[in-house]
Order: sequence, then C-alpha cells, then structure tokens
Amino acid sequence: MQIDKIQTQFQTLRNNKLFESTVIAVILFSALVIGAKTYDMPPTLLSLVGVLDVAITLFFLVELSIRFIGDTNRKAFFRKGWNLFDTLIVVISLIPIEDSEMALVGRLIRIFRVLRMVSVVPELRVLLNSLLKALPQLGYVILLMFIIFYIYAAVGATFFMQINPDLWGDISIAMLTLFRVMTFEDWTDVMYETMAVYPFSWIFYLSFIFLTTFAFLNMVIGIVVNVMENEHADAKAAQAEAEGQLTLDDLSNQISELKELVQAQQQQLQNKTPD
Amino acid sequence: MQIDKIQTQFQTLRNNKLFESTVIAVILFSALVIGAKTYDMPPTLLSLVGVLDVAITLFFLVELSIRFIGDTNRKAFFRKGWNLFDTLIVVISLIPIEDSEMALVGRLIRIFRVLRMVSVVPELRVLLNSLLKALPQLGYVILLMFIIFYIYAAVGATFFMQINPDLWGDISIAMLTLFRVMTFEDWTDVMYETMAVYPFSWIFYLSFIFLTTFAFLNMVIGIVVNVMENEHADAKAAQAEAEGQLTLDDLSNQISELKELVQAQQQQLQNKTPD
Amino acid sequence: MQIDKIQTQFQTLRNNKLFESTVIAVILFSALVIGAKTYDMPPTLLSLVGVLDVAITLFFLVELSIRFIGDTNRKAFFRKGWNLFDTLIVVISLIPIEDSEMALVGRLIRIFRVLRMVSVVPELRVLLNSLLKALPQLGYVILLMFIIFYIYAAVGATFFMQINPDLWGDISIAMLTLFRVMTFEDWTDVMYETMAVYPFSWIFYLSFIFLTTFAFLNMVIGIVVNVMENEHADAKAAQAEAEGQLTLDDLSNQISELKELVQAQQQQLQNKTPD
Amino acid sequence: MQIDKIQTQFQTLRNNKLFESTVIAVILFSALVIGAKTYDMPPTLLSLVGVLDVAITLFFLVELSIRFIGDTNRKAFFRKGWNLFDTLIVVISLIPIEDSEMALVGRLIRIFRVLRMVSVVPELRVLLNSLLKALPQLGYVILLMFIIFYIYAAVGATFFMQINPDLWGDISIAMLTLFRVMTFEDWTDVMYETMAVYPFSWIFYLSFIFLTTFAFLNMVIGIVVNVMENEHADAKAAQAEAEGQLTLDDLSNQISELKELVQAQQQQLQNKTPD
Repeated sequence: MQIDKIQTQFQTLRNNKLFESTVIAVILFSALVIGAKTYDMPPTLLSLVGVLDVAITLFFLVELSIRFIGDTNRKAFFRKGWNLFDTLIVVISLIPIEDSEMALVGRLIRIFRVLRMVSVVPELRVLLNSLLKALPQLGYVILLMFIIFYIYAAVGATFFMQINPDLWGDISIAMLTLFRVMTFEDWTDVMYETMAVYPFSWIFYLSFIFLTTFAFLNMVIGIVVNVMENEHADAKAAQAEAEGQLTLDDLSNQISELKELVQAQQQQLQNKTPD
Repeated sequence: MQIDKIQTQFQTLRNNKLFESTVIAVILFSALVIGAKTYDMPPTLLSLVGVLDVAITLFFLVELSIRFIGDTNRKAFFRKGWNLFDTLIVVISLIPIEDSEMALVGRLIRIFRVLRMVSVVPELRVLLNSLLKALPQLGYVILLMFIIFYIYAAVGATFFMQINPDLWGDISIAMLTLFRVMTFEDWTDVMYETMAVYPFSWIFYLSFIFLTTFAFLNMVIGIVVNVMENEHADAKAAQAEAEGQLTLDDLSNQISELKELVQAQQQQLQNKTPD
Repeated sequence: MQIDKIQTQFQTLRNNKLFESTVIAVILFSALVIGAKTYDMPPTLLSLVGVLDVAITLFFLVELSIRFIGDTNRKAFFRKGWNLFDTLIVVISLIPIEDSEMALVGRLIRIFRVLRMVSVVPELRVLLNSLLKALPQLGYVILLMFIIFYIYAAVGATFFMQINPDLWGDISIAMLTLFRVMTFEDWTDVMYETMAVYPFSWIFYLSFIFLTTFAFLNMVIGIVVNVMENEHADAKAAQAEAEGQLTLDDLSNQISELKELVQAQQQQLQNKTPD
Repeated sequence: MQIDKIQTQFQTLRNNKLFESTVIAVILFSALVIGAKTYDMPPTLLSLVGVLDVAITLFFLVELSIRFIGDTNRKAFFRKGWNLFDTLIVVISLIPIEDSEMALVGRLIRIFRVLRMVSVVPELRVLLNSLLKALPQLGYVILLMFIIFYIYAAVGATFFMQINPDLWGDISIAMLTLFRVMTFEDWTDVMYETMAVYPFSWIFYLSFIFLTTFAFLNMVIGIVVNVMENEHADAKAAQAEAEGQLTLDDLSNQISELKELVQAQQQQLQNKTPD
C-alpha cells in the first residue's frame, strides 16, 4: 500500500511538465559542459567542470530512479530500448575511472549523454523509430550494394595493387577507396593513376559509378514510395473516419434497404390480389 | 473626408500597373548600381553612382509613403513582415554614414535593397512564404541532425585534437569540419590524416556520412510528401468544386429520393387496400 | 496538278521507313566524322574527311528539300522550330569559309549537325519538348535563386575583394565563385581563406549553401510534382476511357432510370384507383 | 521411369532449405577466399587457398548438376539468363590456366562467383530484375544525354585541345573530362585553365552542367514516376481483390437487381388491372 502510494506520487512527478523541462535543461547543460571541455581552460574552470560532471551524473541517477519507481510495470522497464540505454549511460558514468586509456572511454560515455535528448523528447523518439523502421526493408538493396562493392574491390585489389598499395593494398582498403570514388572525392586522381597502366580502366570506374548510383537511387525511391504510401493510407483512413464520409458500403446498404422496401411492397401486392 | 480622398487616390496609384513596373525597374536599376560598384570605376563615374544612390533612396521613400498612405488599414501596415522589412531598409539607407566601419554596413543595407524585389513581386512573395512554411515542420529533423553533429564533433574534438588542431581544435571547429565531410569536400584527406593514428577512424566518418545522409533524405522526403499532399488536396478540392462532379453524397441523395418515392407508393397502396 | 503529284510522291518518300533510317545513319556517320577530326590524322585521311563533309552537307540539303517539297502546308514549314533549325544548319554549312577565325564557326556548325538527331527521331523530340515545357513554370524559382546569388555575390565582392581578387574581384567573378561553392567544389579552400580575415565568414557560406540547396530542392520538387500530376491525370483519363469503366455518373443514370420506372408505376397505380 | 525417379529426388533436394543454405554458405566462403587472396599470405596458407578454390569449384559443379537434373523442363534450363550465367562461371572455373596472362582472367572469373549470390537468393534476383526492367524505358534519356556529351566533347576538343591535351586531346578524352565535370570533381580547375585563354568558356561549363543535371533529373523522375505508378497499381489491385471491397460495378449490379424487381412488380400490377 505504502509502495503503491510512492509509485503514484513518483508517476505524477514523472509526468510533470516542469520535471520534463528540468531534465531537458540538464541534458542541454551537460552538452554545453562537454563542448566546453574541448576548449583550453584554466585549471580552476577545469575543476569546476569536473564538479559539474559529477552533479549531472547524480541528477541523471535520481531522475532515472524516479522514472523506474514511478513506472506502473517495473518488470518491463528494462525491456524498452531507451530505458536500457539511459540506465547503461548512467551506470557507466558512475564508475570512477582514473586510468588514461579508460578516461577516454569515460569521456565518450559522457558525450553519449547528449543522445538522452532523443530518449526524453517524444517527437525525436518517434522520428528515430521511423528512421529505424525503414532500415530492414532496405536490407536487400544494401546487400546488393555490398556485393557490388565487394566484387569491384576484389577486381581493383587484383589489378591495381601494384600501382598504388595505399589505395588498393587489400580488399578492405579497396572498398574504402571505392566508397571515396562513389562520393566523387578526387576520384579522377585515382582513375588517372590506374589509366596510366591500364588505359581502359575508366570502364571499371564509370561502370561502378553507374551501378552504385542506380542502386542508391533505387534505395532512395524505396524509402520515398514506402513513406508516401504509409502517409497516404494513414491520411485516407483518418479522413474517412473523422469526416464520417460516405463509402461505397454505405451506398450499398442504402440500396439494400430500398430493395427490402420494394420486396415488402410486392409481398403486400401479392397478398392483396383478389382471392 | 479630405484624407479619405487622398487615401483613395494613393490606393489607385499603388495598384496601378505602371507604378508597379516603375518600382520593379528602379529596384533592378539599384541592383545594377550595386553590381557596378564592385568594379573599378573612374572618380567621375563613382560620384555619379553616389548621386544615383541618393536618388534611389528618395524614390523608395516616396514609394513607401504612397503605399502607407494608400493602405486601407494603416494601423496594421507595419504588422506585415514585408512592409516592416521595406521600411527598415529605406530608413537605414537614409542615415548618412561617413565612418569607414559603418560605411560597410551602409553598403550591406544597399545590397539588401535587391531583396525588395521579393516584397514587390507577388509570385516571389508566395514562393518564399511557401518555403518558410515548410521550415517549422522540419524543426525536429534539423534538431536531430544538430544532435548528430554535436556528438560527432565532441568525439572528433576529443580524439583528433592532437592530430590536427586546425580541423578538430574545439567543438565548433570540429562541427565545421564535419559539415565539410558531409559535403564530401576533401573528406578523405581529413580521414586519411586521422587513420594514420587511429586505423579504425574510418568507422567514425562512414557512420557519420550514413547518418547525416539518411537524416537529410528523411528531411527531403518530408518536404516532398508535404508539398505533394497539399497540392493534391488543393487540386482535388478545386476539381470537385469547379467541375461540379458527382460525389457519393449526391448518389446517396438520389437513392434517398427514390426511397421516399417508393415509401409514398406503399402508403398509397395501403390506403387503397379494401376497407 | 503536276506539282501536287510531286508533292505526294515526296511525302511518300519522306514517310518511308528506309528514308528515315538512311537519314539517321548519315547523321550518325557525320557525328563519327566530327569525332574523327579531333584525332591526329595523316593528310590523306584529312582530305577524305573534307570530301565526306561536303557529301554529308549535300545529302542534308537534298533531304531537307524532300521534306520541304513533301510538306502539305509549305507556308507553315518554317514556323516549326525544328525545321528552322535544320535549315539554318544546312544553309550555314553551305557557305564556304576559309578564314581561320570563321573556320572555327564552321566546325561548330558541323558539330551542331549531331543535334539533327533530335529533330529526326520523334521520341527525342517529344522528350526535349517535355523538358522545355517544364522550364517556364520554374521561372520564378530560377529568378529567386538568381536574386540569392546576386545578393551574396555583392556582399562577397564588397568584403572579400581585398582577400582574393581572383575569386571575388567583381560581382560576376563572385557569382562564378558562388556557383563553385554551390557545387561543393573546393569550397572549404575559399572559406578558410576568408575566415583568416573574417572569422565569422563561415556564416556567409553555410547560409548560402542552405538557401541555394533549399531553393534547388524546391525546384526539383516542383518538377516532380508537376510531371507526376500530369502523368497521373493522363493515366486516369486513359484508363476511364479505354476500359469503359463505370463512373459515378453511370450509376447516377441507372438510379434515375429506376426512379422513372417507379414514378411510372405510381402513375399506373393512381390511374387504377377506384374511380 | 528410373530417370523420372532420380529427377524427382533431385528436385526435392534442390528445394530443400538446408541445401539452399549450404549453397549460400559456400558462396559466402568463396567470397571470403577471394578477399583473403588480396592480402599477403605465407606460402602454406596460399596453397591451402588453392585447394579450397578447387573444392569450391567442384561443389558448384555438383550443385549445378543437381539443379539441372532436378529441373522439370531440362530443355529450357539454359534459356534462363541466371542458369546460363551460373554454368559459364562454373565451366570457365574448371579450365586449368597456368599462363600468367590467363591467370588474371581466371581470378576475375572466381571473383564473379560472388555474383552467384544474386542468382541463388530470390529476393536479390527480383531486385536486380526490377532494376534492369527500368533501363529500356530510360533508353531515350540516356541517348539524349549521350548526344549532349558528344556535342560538348566535340566543341571542347576543337577549342581546348591546344590548352590541355591531357583533358581535351581527342573526343573520347574530352567525354571523360566532361563526365568528371558532371560529377563536380575539380571542375573549376578545368574551367579556370580554359578561361585563361577563352574568358567566356564558363558559359560552356555552366550550360553543360545545367543541361546534364536537368536531363539526369528527368531520368530520376522517370524512374520514380514509373516505380510509384506500378506500386500504386499493384497495391490497388491487391487491395480490391483481397479485401473483397465493393466496386462501382457491384453497386451497379445491385441497382440492376432492384430495377428487375420493380419491373416484375409492374408486370404484376398490369396483370392485376381489372380486365
């Protein structure tokens, strides 16, 4: 009973607008602290930043506890991706790390706290989820593109390795070079170099550019078509429901009623026939 | 009474086609004067340009006065963004500035007079308004993109600061460098430099490119979907209204009329039944 | 009478498949000759090319004459843009030019003969016409983009002229530089140079990139929406007509017929009422 | 009879999930072997790779035989593009080549074995087929773009050959340079070089960029419109069929039934009229 009361109170607190705004403000502030750390600072300011860092970590710990206690279904709390992410960020922040190697990891974790913005602002969460939802559908296009990259990288590494090992040394370096060619970044320098040895190697580059552009285009169109179709279907359903607009089914029902009426009339006529 | 008459006269003048064309011509001429100033000119021509400048400013002052006096609702005149913009440009142009520092600001203001083109030509005003209307809707995507930039810039500034302070010196420089990477401008040079120290830093660049491209794509699709849906809805409404085309509601009404007819007939039959 | 007979014969020739194929083959051959001229050739081959050139010009003259004589409405012949283009190309090719300056113009004219491909193949003509049709509609977006370019070029020429006159010397050079920035071609080099003097000049470049990208996007969407709407409308009309599909109007007519039937029945009943 | 039994058994094997997974696993493994070959390897590993190579070739031979024997219509087997491709890859892999020149071709063939992934995974096959299906429709746009390239290359080779033979030496080199300009790769360097001789040559580059961008845009829109229309038509047909939704035809039938009913009633009334 006591616990339920606490839970309700925490839930109220959690859904409080002021509480949400405070959390967002602290996240923004932690982002500023992270940004400030990249500038050269006098030692006094540096120690202040250290103190602020601890304060932010503690605030996040308190906030997460409130969320957890205020949750109606505490068992399912960690099954939600965002809650798990929040907890991980807070827990790892708590571990005191002095080792210089680990210190970098600690800084990384503090940077990822900015991502909490996404977990706290619902609109951003919706946006990211919709982005992630589009991914699996594109899986096969990405696979096809990877196959194209792999084949071209194997061909490139086989033929051009002697020409410039920095660009075509092995298949993974060759794939990075091909990604560079795909972004058109100094790709002619790469091409002219191999054309000096193999004059027809422009076929390699041009066909690669055409294939990847075409596949990429297909991917983009895939997303566009999918997004638009969903939007369209949603809009249509919403319109039909909200406006109470007539459908063909409604008309069909009207005609059926009319039919029954005519049939009843006929029945009446038959009954009325001179006996 | 006297004032009303003047207002009506000015309004007539304001809506006059010739008046509009003259204003556009003067704006075009002021644009040419601005362009001419960027070329080396003999002193005589330079003083002529100075005179023309004053003449253009005075013309704009007169034109704005006519617009103001000819307005039916003078109180709301300055509430419209474009009117405010026009007034500001004209008023600041009037301030005589000799100071060399201020002279540059004065030149800037004269350049922005070309923007008056947008405030005068209605089609351009409509176009710009539609562009601005699409912005707020994209607010969260821009926010998400900013978060991605901020996190990557913080990571970049933390790890790569020692490698090249010109590119990764602090978080703001790192964000500019990342924008450069996003436009594919010599991004491999940036990458190869950090790969010499951190061989796996290509993951940093490739994941950044994928994320921003994906988010940007989402933004573009957002605009496309929005614009097309609006266009579609407008076109549909216009078609339905203009062509007087039949809707399902019209059919429903027809069936209802028929039903009433049949019911009336039935009533008649019942009345007719042998009493 | 005699002339009409000739006209009919020429018209038959003109619409002959073999004739069309021959013309296309000669255009292709003339394109190859033009391409061959750009290679170093022995003098004998060079004189052969000269002979071929004359032969092609004569063939085009004959072909154009056949088209002209075979036209049913000879007065309107030159009113069609493509006919005018063909005639101009052939006539200028006929002028013998020896002057070295003019010789270049002569070569240009011979190159433009390849464009005759578009005037001869109907599918290409349709394609190009549809491209040109989309242009006027985009007029205001292009105007808006030009205004953005002009203002930024004026600002750039005013502030950056001293830094690098090669890039910002006057307003026309500045516009070319801005076009370069828009294509992301070494735009950071341009920016870093001015940032050394004006540290905040990155605002100039980033705002320019955002504005032009946004305006360009709007243009692209404008084309897409327009093309798709037209395609859609055409497809819908074609479907409705070709498949003889039922429309709401057909249903309405059916209901009206039914109504008349019921009304006739009622009339009958009324007549039948015991007098 | 005996052969039929074998065929049925092989067909069962061929459609077996485990068989399919094994084939995919071997293709993936062969891809890894190809990738491994691009790295420096100790001789023992190198000979192991050679053995693996033979094993993979033999596996593919067995697999293809199973597919062939298990096919219900063995005569049409080689008429399918993918079967032909698979057979060619396997047969050429079997030819023992020692010659160093030929050895490279042998390596190429082994690389193309990765493409078998597309022939084995049905989803990838569908994807590639849909990509290929979009190509012919775009034929004329590609032709138009080629004409634009050819004309500009001819003009470029004529005027700029003396300036930089490496970029404008003959028409084929000029076309490659123009493709580079189209990808915005250091295109300003190319332009500034020719602008030193012909100050107005920026018109050449800008008009080329506008034309190709416009044509490319048209191509992209062509694909988008086509894909979306097909998707839309498919979705509509699927929806209508699957959901058993009412169409206007259904309504029309309902009205017709009603009409017959009313007509029958009228007949009845007429029969009943006092004779």
